[in-house]
Amino acid sequence: MTALFTGYGYQVRIVGSDLENIDQDLAASLRWALGVIRSIQKAAREGKPIFKPRWPVIILRTPKVCNAPQSLMSVDRAPLPQGMGCPAKYKREFIEGSFRSHQVPIPDAKTDAEGLKALQEWLSSYSPAELFTETGRPIDEILSVVPQDKGKRLGQVKEIYAGREAIVVPNWKELAVAKGSEESCMRLVGKYMDKVFLANPTSTRIFSPDELESNKLAAVFDNTGRNFQWDEYSFGQGGRVVEILSEHTCQGQLRWTSHCCYQLTRSLSGMLQGYTMTGRTALFPSYEAFIGIAQTMMVQYSKFVKMAKETSFRAPNASLNYLETSTWTRQEHNGFSHQNPSFIGAVLNLKADAARVYFPPDANCFLSTIAHCINSKNYVNLMVGSKHPTAVWLSPEEAEVHCRAGASVWRFCSTDEGLRPDVVLVGIGTEVTFEVITAAALLRKVAPELRVRVVNVTDLMVLGPFGSHPHALSDTDFENLFTKDKNIVVNYHGYPHDVAGLVFGRKGAERMHIEGYREEGSTTTPFDMMLRNHVSRYHVAGEAVRGAALFNERIALRSMELGGELQGRIKGDQKYIFEYGAGEFR
Amino acid sequence: MTALFTGYGYQVRIVGSDLENIDQDLAASLRWALGVIRSIQKAAREGKPIFKPRWPVIILRTPKVCNAPQSLMSVDRAPLPQGMGCPAKYKREFIEGSFRSHQVPIPDAKTDAEGLKALQEWLSSYSPAELFTETGRPIDEILSVVPQDKGKRLGQVKEIYAGREAIVVPNWKELAVAKGSEESCMRLVGKYMDKVFLANPTSTRIFSPDELESNKLAAVFDNTGRNFQWDEYSFGQGGRVVEILSEHTCQGQLRWTSHCCYQLTRSLSGMLQGYTMTGRTALFPSYEAFIGIAQTMMVQYSKFVKMAKETSFRAPNASLNYLETSTWTRQEHNGFSHQNPSFIGAVLNLKADAARVYFPPDANCFLSTIAHCINSKNYVNLMVGSKHPTAVWLSPEEAEVHCRAGASVWRFCSTDEGLRPDVVLVGIGTEVTFEVITAAALLRKVAPELRVRVVNVTDLMVLGPFGSHPHALSDTDFENLFTKDKNIVVNYHGYPHDVAGLVFGRKGAERMHIEGYREEGSTTTPFDMMLRNHVSRYHVAGEAVRGAALFNERIALRSMELGGELQGRIKGDQKYIFEYGAGEFR
Repeated sequence: MTALFTGYGYQVRIVGSDLENIDQDLAASLRWALGVIRSIQKAAREGKPIFKPRWPVIILRTPKVCNAPQSLMSVDRAPLPQGMGCPAKYKREFIEGSFRSHQVPIPDAKTDAEGLKALQEWLSSYSPAELFTETGRPIDEILSVVPQDKGKRLGQVKEIYAGREAIVVPNWKELAVAKGSEESCMRLVGKYMDKVFLANPTSTRIFSPDELESNKLAAVFDNTGRNFQWDEYSFGQGGRVVEILSEHTCQGQLRWTSHCCYQLTRSLSGMLQGYTMTGRTALFPSYEAFIGIAQTMMVQYSKFVKMAKETSFRAPNASLNYLETSTWTRQEHNGFSHQNPSFIGAVLNLKADAARVYFPPDANCFLSTIAHCINSKNYVNLMVGSKHPTAVWLSPEEAEVHCRAGASVWRFCSTDEGLRPDVVLVGIGTEVTFEVITAAALLRKVAPELRVRVVNVTDLMVLGPFGSHPHALSDTDFENLFTKDKNIVVNYHGYPHDVAGLVFGRKGAERMHIEGYREEGSTTTPFDMMLRNHVSRYHVAGEAVRGAALFNERIALRSMELGGELQGRIKGDQKYIFEYGAGEFR
Repeated sequence: MTALFTGYGYQVRIVGSDLENIDQDLAASLRWALGVIRSIQKAAREGKPIFKPRWPVIILRTPKVCNAPQSLMSVDRAPLPQGMGCPAKYKREFIEGSFRSHQVPIPDAKTDAEGLKALQEWLSSYSPAELFTETGRPIDEILSVVPQDKGKRLGQVKEIYAGREAIVVPNWKELAVAKGSEESCMRLVGKYMDKVFLANPTSTRIFSPDELESNKLAAVFDNTGRNFQWDEYSFGQGGRVVEILSEHTCQGQLRWTSHCCYQLTRSLSGMLQGYTMTGRTALFPSYEAFIGIAQTMMVQYSKFVKMAKETSFRAPNASLNYLETSTWTRQEHNGFSHQNPSFIGAVLNLKADAARVYFPPDANCFLSTIAHCINSKNYVNLMVGSKHPTAVWLSPEEAEVHCRAGASVWRFCSTDEGLRPDVVLVGIGTEVTFEVITAAALLRKVAPELRVRVVNVTDLMVLGPFGSHPHALSDTDFENLFTKDKNIVVNYHGYPHDVAGLVFGRKGAERMHIEGYREEGSTTTPFDMMLRNHVSRYHVAGEAVRGAALFNERIALRSMELGGELQGRIKGDQKYIFEYGAGEFR
């Protein structure tokens, strides 16, 4: 244990091997630890911080453990002193030092006289009469330890309840790019976060389990750096970025097994969570496939926020802001192992007043979304987008309108601005929306008599039945967007299950055909990834023909040949990709 | 690093600080490590195993790291020898020793002449002409290292491809209990696994992150023990149970950050996965709320199985068998932090040919299910159930029929055996099914003119549209079970989203009203947990009245008063629970 914790970087002291003196040992050790902490603090406050300080750690070794082996329990050893968290023995079984000490050491105290007696003897061993007055108040000697200043009492320090510090939210439109250009959403997010850091140099951070460079967010380094502790060149420079290859650590703290009490502890402290809970605002970018690692921690934290909202004394905190990039659609180098969009579903299962999921379809929309998210409170915001340069479909003003609405008809790529459509095509996510738009263009060529309306959904939460979520569209808005009766072809970024579960109960949901990631991938071209998961332009066009045929007799007449033609293109492209290892945007 | 790895229990050797001699250092260190391994093996094979052997570990220290800080890169230091995984420098930037060495060290080699030259120089520095013949075959000196015996070649050892050893599957009916009794599903699973271990003493195991005792599975210890390494009493006794408080370790191996390549590596080795992949069969019981911690590892492993099935040389392995217990319904001691049924959704997102989710409603059904699962191949089996004694609804013979069907009408608790119902009530999960049955009984009292059919679903996968999963019911079977037109009240154990996503596209899905866990909980009574999440008997009965009213005019006449009556009971019970902290089965 000493070697292990020394390896972790601590000064180690073990208390408890001699049980007779455990109280004195613990007191002396706490005094030692406080001394070490104070000397590290003093050096830092005098402007001469110790490089790589070794903080103290006390390891408490007691006989009360949850997982002692059966075999140890049958060893005849002297009973340990009464009062170490449970009775030493009960009904010939060891309790202390065994798993029986966990939770309810005497389960039958309610029904068994012997159990009740054992419980009484054990609890009496703490001598409550010496510790409490007759009214149950702790004696003065104990109370004298409690600080008079409420702000110095454990659990009453201001940071715990004061909530979020307001931040300056830079104007995203200053970074907006021209409609019709190509731009990487992540590159602009990087530039935007640079401005955020300049405007809020002590209350904003990025916690990143990946190289920011790898997620194309490097522009954040224009005016700040990585806040490494072990590197003398960046140490103590106030860098706003914490980069450490561990989603667990970025989210919470330490390397503990994330189980039970430990999970809860971890969930309420440490990096993203601790920083947010103490009033600050942070962004957590991640490869899409790996943020799922911190999923249960995110859910635990959300449980805390839910309970905090039910108290009267806790002010709201900033949201947890997740940025998923390097998504499954562009894992042409890493392949199947780097594809996992499951974190979206975890956010969808949160309470509706906490869950927010965004798929900004271009760089301007992404800027608008991140500016909104970092200024929001008590949510879990999940933003999903591409790091590669992609088409900028909307001007800054159009992007603002689109993001405010959550979803809108994209008239520029619809037939006749989207009037009187035979079928509605919906894109949710950058690459799958590109395929939808390309499908619409393709249909104009091969089936000019087919009228399509193209819709983009940037705020996933508009889709659920009215009342299920604060953002859910009314039935009328839903029909205005998706028509009253036409079929709806949904091309979605994540698992189709997400959207299916969301729209359940929504009038008109039965008109939807949903495609999305279906656990197919390899080290192949991005377009092949679209083909394998049935979200390519050809698949969208094929489904559009099928859906439109019910409303357009001329399409019905041609539907079989059109279907065959599109199948042929799929096969042709797959063959080309297999032969040449290329052909992503043919 | 030496302290840390010594603390982990290894003998440590670091290679590489003197780069000039790194090859010799590595060779000598490998020889040392093999020697240590051989001496530990020798002792064990001579029947005198070393207690707590210290296995060797070699730490390789090279300049090629992915996450070197920006600041280190600008330091002017001597270039390192060419060929350490990337060029030393390129276009005035350090590549070696920096994040630029990750993935594509010279990204512009395709378009830039200088880049192409740098790439050529770097690759030439490996001297391929000395290592390969002109046809591209490695030279004889290299090939002479490869063992003649194919079974001794790395990657060709039999365990890797040979697949699952058949196991003896004990007859579960020998442990079945009487219909009408009360029994803990987990207690019987414990007894059954005891039989499994006796019948298969070298090819079956349990990996458990919880005390088996805490999940009421202790009967497995009747004839075996925990296989601790550090405890001289259980060491080397061949215990079939590995108990370690870490879901990650039970699933995979080691404590690495579960990111990227590490995640993949971990996913293909270690405890449950390594044991299963090398032909054996295991069970992984867990508190429901904590198995989500290993979710991304499970998905990674499933990706491996999918790819393995696409090869011709790998035989099928056993399934991953997960047992979720200590579920959210019975967290009256631990409360909200111990409620998280999200692992079900992760399994639902797998490919249909791998995903299996079971909610055996009583102890006999559970026995039938576990006997089926441990004998299956290449699936992810998730079984969810209670550790507390619960009603045994079905005889062993009935349980067998029910589990084979996946779902059936429970005539014994339906009106008139379920003929001509006004509404269909569906239970999926132990406690929520109990509430459904109690709701049916309550309705018989307060609204005897209302005719209900009670259905239990034990195999969740029957619900999806025909063709979406091998177990999905045909449309005719679905209508036979759930009627052609009546409303269906679904009381589900997990997040309602799971079922909603599953039934999307199923004809008749719009008739369903689904309730389940809605992220509400506390340290309260189990029945209050039902009330808070709207899955109580009163909620089921209320929805039954609402659904039946459309088909039964006499119920329509009374629906408002019945609704008020049920709401009154909810309020009354909540008040009672708040005052007395009891009242779970009033």
